[in-house]
Amino acid sequence: MTEPSAQARRAAFAEAHRATLAKAQEAARSRGYFSAYPETPSGKIYGETAKAEAEAAFQALLGQPFAPGDTLLGEEASPWGQKLGITYPGLPVDALVARAEAAAPAWADAAPEIRAGICLEILHRLNRDSFLMAQAVMHTTGQAFAMAFQAGGPHAQDRGLEAVAYAMDELSKVPGAVRWTKPAGREQLVMDKRFRAVPRGIGLVIGCATFPTWNGYPGIFASLATGNAVIVKPHPAAILPLALTVRTARAVLAEAGFAADVIQLAPDTAAAPIAQDLATHPAIGIVDFTGGPAFGAWLRAHVGGRKALHTEEAGINPVVLHSTADFAGLCRNLAFSLSLYSGQMCTAPQNIFIPAEGIETEAGRKSFEEIGAALARAIDWLLADPARAAGVLGAVQNPATLDRIAAARGLGTIVRDSAAVEMPGFPEARSATPLLVAVEADACEAWGEERFGPIAFLIRCPDAAAALDHAAGSARARGAITALVHATDEGFLARAEAAFARAGVALSENLTGSVFVNQSAAFSDYHVSGANPAGTSCLTDAAFVANRFTIAMARRPAAA
Amino acid sequence: MTEPSAQARRAAFAEAHRATLAKAQEAARSRGYFSAYPETPSGKIYGETAKAEAEAAFQALLGQPFAPGDTLLGEEASPWGQKLGITYPGLPVDALVARAEAAAPAWADAAPEIRAGICLEILHRLNRDSFLMAQAVMHTTGQAFAMAFQAGGPHAQDRGLEAVAYAMDELSKVPGAVRWTKPAGREQLVMDKRFRAVPRGIGLVIGCATFPTWNGYPGIFASLATGNAVIVKPHPAAILPLALTVRTARAVLAEAGFAADVIQLAPDTAAAPIAQDLATHPAIGIVDFTGGPAFGAWLRAHVGGRKALHTEEAGINPVVLHSTADFAGLCRNLAFSLSLYSGQMCTAPQNIFIPAEGIETEAGRKSFEEIGAALARAIDWLLADPARAAGVLGAVQNPATLDRIAAARGLGTIVRDSAAVEMPGFPEARSATPLLVAVEADACEAWGEERFGPIAFLIRCPDAAAALDHAAGSARARGAITALVHATDEGFLARAEAAFARAGVALSENLTGSVFVNQSAAFSDYHVSGANPAGTSCLTDAAFVANRFTIAMARRPAAA
Repeated sequence: MTEPSAQARRAAFAEAHRATLAKAQEAARSRGYFSAYPETPSGKIYGETAKAEAEAAFQALLGQPFAPGDTLLGEEASPWGQKLGITYPGLPVDALVARAEAAAPAWADAAPEIRAGICLEILHRLNRDSFLMAQAVMHTTGQAFAMAFQAGGPHAQDRGLEAVAYAMDELSKVPGAVRWTKPAGREQLVMDKRFRAVPRGIGLVIGCATFPTWNGYPGIFASLATGNAVIVKPHPAAILPLALTVRTARAVLAEAGFAADVIQLAPDTAAAPIAQDLATHPAIGIVDFTGGPAFGAWLRAHVGGRKALHTEEAGINPVVLHSTADFAGLCRNLAFSLSLYSGQMCTAPQNIFIPAEGIETEAGRKSFEEIGAALARAIDWLLADPARAAGVLGAVQNPATLDRIAAARGLGTIVRDSAAVEMPGFPEARSATPLLVAVEADACEAWGEERFGPIAFLIRCPDAAAALDHAAGSARARGAITALVHATDEGFLARAEAAFARAGVALSENLTGSVFVNQSAAFSDYHVSGANPAGTSCLTDAAFVANRFTIAMARRPAAA
Repeated sequence: MTEPSAQARRAAFAEAHRATLAKAQEAARSRGYFSAYPETPSGKIYGETAKAEAEAAFQALLGQPFAPGDTLLGEEASPWGQKLGITYPGLPVDALVARAEAAAPAWADAAPEIRAGICLEILHRLNRDSFLMAQAVMHTTGQAFAMAFQAGGPHAQDRGLEAVAYAMDELSKVPGAVRWTKPAGREQLVMDKRFRAVPRGIGLVIGCATFPTWNGYPGIFASLATGNAVIVKPHPAAILPLALTVRTARAVLAEAGFAADVIQLAPDTAAAPIAQDLATHPAIGIVDFTGGPAFGAWLRAHVGGRKALHTEEAGINPVVLHSTADFAGLCRNLAFSLSLYSGQMCTAPQNIFIPAEGIETEAGRKSFEEIGAALARAIDWLLADPARAAGVLGAVQNPATLDRIAAARGLGTIVRDSAAVEMPGFPEARSATPLLVAVEADACEAWGEERFGPIAFLIRCPDAAAALDHAAGSARARGAITALVHATDEGFLARAEAAFARAGVALSENLTGSVFVNQSAAFSDYHVSGANPAGTSCLTDAAFVANRFTIAMARRPAAA
């Protein structure tokens, strides 16, 4: 039996967060602006001492076991320069699954409202600790502090809340007890039916190294809210953000009288990966994966047919230039999108399709070469101040990205070269500014694959229509998550909307101000469509949650 | 441009069926009894001459090309005794796909309400022609007339309507135009966003030989309603029911000014099957399959990871006997379930798990042997009259089923042997009454696989708890669609409900009257759960429709 105080806490969590959940459900339907968690890293909101305390807490984690364990592993190194030296207890796959299965039944049997209350309490505490999460995200992914705070903290929490909102919407459709009365001649057939939502099985969430919380929370919270135990397998390079997340979640679960093993961390190393063994274990019913298309393809082939599989893999995001009424704004906005987190966002543009004859602007026609030069200048201006450059670029997560930049230099004409920049306070930081390479439209071997990192191509196309065809065709065939088009012609914009809708790409138009194509806001922007090779699923739509549970029925003749 | 009269017909279809759609959506939510199409094959409802006219129309179809074509194929033979001699135009896979792709854009762009109106008009006309459909279903599947009318006609139409209702529910969640206003310091970021539902791709529906319309309509109408063009690949032994369906659908589409190729029939032969080529064609985005687990496994491995795949494969449906207050009713009801359509329903029981010590009844304890004898007598009584026997049993669809019966005789002790019966009016009919074989619980090699047809095992278990364990364990591991339990003990019923819910099986309890475990009613009973190997999806829940479309967005800064 659950002790009375735990029962009371369950009810209190549900009550405390009921209004937030209702607002989130309404926002997910109306899809206007909504956020439950303040994105500003301000002492006024999070407490004047929060930042300093979080830095101290982060320092205290370094060089220590995160938790006791027989097998301790961990090899995280900050892209800003220091080895973290944190180790995490590892468990064999069978032990992880056995613990999840032991914890699962009570969680499955809990009322959806109780589970939602616990999910929102977890998110609430994660929000409270956003400054610590910012340190953890910054020093694993290489994100600059402001992005690490926002994307790793409040924005990720919003994505988690959004998933709970969708799960509750779908669960609320499952009726409880129903009487079924069928006319049969002069008589009636009367049956009493009871329905229940049954969790699909253990949810496995496989994390990535760039946005471990933002990309991980939707799957974690969608599976938890629909009643599944969850195993979180972080990327070996970014364990800490998800370890902190799981620790918080386990504490809340335990306070509410559930087994902490409803959620478990399953760290591994690059040398001894466990994701395949976990994903193919028969007890795993759901797999959420963010990462490269090679492992994505393996998952699709090996678990995609029977288990619920949700992937975000790779996008080659296009920009199409037709015309603009604000050429300086276009360049400023695009320079920022190319520079932000050194092009390591899955939403960052890579391929800029430009008509060979240039584009019309408010200041007359700009040639292909003029556009490249103006964009290069805008990047230079943005990154001229070292402190600002560090804040925009962040650090490069993976050394392989630097090799990719070196290789890309040979793919065409260098319009702007990539270079390391000085990062104040982080002399060892791995950095790289955007590389711009001009190529011809037929150089598919250059621009036709994802070149992850600060690498962009200026692609000379016969005309704007051909630019759109290349961009949308590539998105359909090879995958894309975002697209950006600049045009003053409504007819061209309409054609772009139709083409990118068909290609399953989220389209932004004429961005010249403070909204960037990279940004995807929970509750309003759908992230990834599932309609092209960039991923199988969308954060978040009904399809993302509906297959995480099934509906069971028991019926019997009604008592006379 | 669409001509004005076609535009008017579109609007008229939507208007004519608006109330039916609303009632269907409400029924799908409340899940009480609902049916839009009368199940009684009565002249009062369908017209006094309808039956005779349908028989004449069926006769006129025999021995003829169904439609003109360069390549004509067809090898249907009625299990009741006659070769149909109907041939159907076949097309190469690439031609089918090219036609679907040409027809698709206008259908995708139509408003959901217009598409729903057309779907309901198609169902309305199919309903009107239910007597002809009954002939077509009877003489391909072997179902007796009454079942062929009900399951092939109104019940299938209800399943199609249910799918449209779910599709409309999901599509209605996609917002149209939204203004997003985000506070940003003293300013605001304001974006105008437009969302649209984008069909996932061409829907392929692969039909079965036993319930071609009942199992086919959910996928057909779910894909149509969500804006996808559809290719229907019938089983070579049961083309006619789906050919009639597609003909009706094409006529309605053409009247409404859409290309008839929005839906196409893709017949093939057993010697030259095309399902694999169709399923793996890149233009196919959705596959609905009803059939055996061998091809199901192939589909899961080859298309399951990327395309939306919905399968119904095979179930080994259990019965668990614990106790009863109406032993005669139990035997009568179960005898009917075993005999109905000669056990060829995917919902028919196969394995009857019985405690070795027998069960308590209102007339004292009945031993294992007494239960077997009573069940055999109930079957004998049910089938004693040849006309009634023909009406219950129908004919055996596939000659291989007779071989399976012969092989099953050697698997244990024959309690009741299978035999052919005389079918009045059909001297050539292929028939077989239920075979009952007694085995021990450890004879998994006998009862542990699906033995499709009128084959049932009486399985002697140590006790009722072991019977439940075997039944639920087998369902989880090997798949089941239905389960039946008899018990007067509420504690045992509760344990059975929990065990079968976890196994993803629809449970019926204490059926002794005129409701049978085989029956699954649209709008109330969920058919297949997706939670065990019997299939990946449920007819019909949100997950069945939600991945048939994706959501595309275009956003731009709001005009100042």
